[in-house]
Amino acid sequence: MQINILVFDNFEPLDVFGPMEIFLNAADFQPRLFTLSNSPLVTSFREIKLQVHPLRDIDPHQTLLIPGGDGTRTYVHDKDFLQELQNLAHQAQYCLSVCTGSALLAATDFLNGKRATSNKAAFNWVTSINSKVHWQPHARWVVDGNCYTSSGISAGMDMTFAFLEEIQGSSAAEHVAQYLEYSRIKNPDNDPFAVD
Amino acid sequence: MQINILVFDNFEPLDVFGPMEIFLNAADFQPRLFTLSNSPLVTSFREIKLQVHPLRDIDPHQTLLIPGGDGTRTYVHDKDFLQELQNLAHQAQYCLSVCTGSALLAATDFLNGKRATSNKAAFNWVTSINSKVHWQPHARWVVDGNCYTSSGISAGMDMTFAFLEEIQGSSAAEHVAQYLEYSRIKNPDNDPFAVD
Repeated sequence: MQINILVFDNFEPLDVFGPMEIFLNAADFQPRLFTLSNSPLVTSFREIKLQVHPLRDIDPHQTLLIPGGDGTRTYVHDKDFLQELQNLAHQAQYCLSVCTGSALLAATDFLNGKRATSNKAAFNWVTSINSKVHWQPHARWVVDGNCYTSSGISAGMDMTFAFLEEIQGSSAAEHVAQYLEYSRIKNPDNDPFAVD
Repeated sequence: MQINILVFDNFEPLDVFGPMEIFLNAADFQPRLFTLSNSPLVTSFREIKLQVHPLRDIDPHQTLLIPGGDGTRTYVHDKDFLQELQNLAHQAQYCLSVCTGSALLAATDFLNGKRATSNKAAFNWVTSINSKVHWQPHARWVVDGNCYTSSGISAGMDMTFAFLEEIQGSSAAEHVAQYLEYSRIKNPDNDPFAVD
């Protein structure tokens, strides 16, 4: 299974590399970094410069992962970016977002009628983007059909382990967590950073 | 404070980007990725291609961070690499390693006589490299003077939060952990992955 991870200027590094670390160490996943632009070089948050795939290299029918980060504040206003993202989200076998990546999805029609969550410190901003989404204020992550959305930054790893568990079973997920020496939050309702 | 993060072929992504995420979101740290080679492009673990600084761009009197990963199995036999690393470690204000990054340090004289730890799944291999190191089998991370070493992969983030706490105080560390929605292990003796 290919995991197509969208990167853009000022994405949050751990939103990408936390889940990617899990997929790289699980069996039968091929995570691939790509960009919607034609330039293969992406500048991330200040010091990180990546060489990634252009859009034409990816198979849109595989799994899509969308990180958050400061860049989402710009891209929620970029109509071309959002149209392309909407097309990709609807074609993907599974669609996963981390942190304010769900703000980008909410700016398309993909989350309409679905349960979803986002970064808790940015929750008021994200939920203001689209009132047709059933936003969950108390969730480490949320699954609705083929759509996974997580809370802020680190929560993306717990969500990714839950996704791995769904696809390959709990022993596969535990094996990778042990390898990474990672203490999982296994209950999606256990949200230590929820704001009441 | 500059944080000079050494990358090499087949480094472990989370060993680098976990700590880097913390430094990028704390005040007054400038994390910088660099390589000992003259080529600025580094291929990481399979799909990650980074553009990083050459050695000449970094100030060796700042803080040094050394990740682990499969690449350490090669570089522990590379005399030129190890001589350069030894020079850098002795000049650094603080020296931090994550996971099997301590195998590289142990292949120099830098850890001789110091308390240190490493990845628990690779512990037999790492400790076999140098018997002059006081290896700690039950530790999430270890501090000895200006030298911080962590257990495997994810443990690098807990160690980095402890380092941030030493430099800037506990409220600065808590502020970043809250921003990252990260549940810290705060006790270095709390090692869920120790092998007895």
